[in-house]
Amino acid sequence: MAKDLFHQSVKTALIKDGWIITSDPLTIRIGRVKLEIDLAAERIFAAQKDGHKIAVEVKSFINPSNINDFHAALGQCLNYRLALQLTEPSRVIYLAVPIDIFLQFFQEYFIQAAIKEHHLKILAYDPNLEEIVEWRH
Amino acid sequence: MAKDLFHQSVKTALIKDGWIITSDPLTIRIGRVKLEIDLAAERIFAAQKDGHKIAVEVKSFINPSNINDFHAALGQCLNYRLALQLTEPSRVIYLAVPIDIFLQFFQEYFIQAAIKEHHLKILAYDPNLEEIVEWRH
Repeated sequence: MAKDLFHQSVKTALIKDGWIITSDPLTIRIGRVKLEIDLAAERIFAAQKDGHKIAVEVKSFINPSNINDFHAALGQCLNYRLALQLTEPSRVIYLAVPIDIFLQFFQEYFIQAAIKEHHLKILAYDPNLEEIVEWRH
Repeated sequence: MAKDLFHQSVKTALIKDGWIITSDPLTIRIGRVKLEIDLAAERIFAAQKDGHKIAVEVKSFINPSNINDFHAALGQCLNYRLALQLTEPSRVIYLAVPIDIFLQFFQEYFIQAAIKEHHLKILAYDPNLEEIVEWRH
């Protein structure tokens, strides 16, 4: 499954879950630095007036080294979070991870320690069913 | 200049600066996760009994996108710092950056904000002269 298919899969999963995709990608410019986050989405929940706004960085973890993919994912997530804090602080960034990676590699002690250290928010998705399996806030 | 030459350049620069290279690379295993930091070095300063111990992640920034290289560098640095905290807390991690990148791209507002946010320690090196130009603690 090519990288673009994972992107499309998460997009479809979010729509199924009631989200409206508002940017694909979400581009943020800060000075001469341009950042591109895979997806932005919005959803109105019944209990509240304002919508939830999220940004989603889609990761496939299809490369041979899971830890190298995790280094890149962490760097992107933290830079995107900082960029959002500087431009649109109400939007929350999620790292989208395939469910098999979430259930195996992401359960390693070190990965759990990194998630805790950096307060990462995770969205685990099923790339084949195109569904969100779990939100980890 | 190929990636390995940047690695060799920083290694030579550290030796010139009085450091002893103790690992090349420094491998850390935490559970089933294996991390490899480019270099580890040690130096005894006259004023103190204990040596300074550092780990150095060498970055070339030779790819077309500086920001993508920065995402990867940030993720590696923060994961390596966490791994060191868990295994050898007295060793300090530095990100080695070519001097031209340090003087230009790294002066961008967003990059400075990220360095401040994550308290990154930087070592700027001249890849051709094989010398350390600046330490940013």
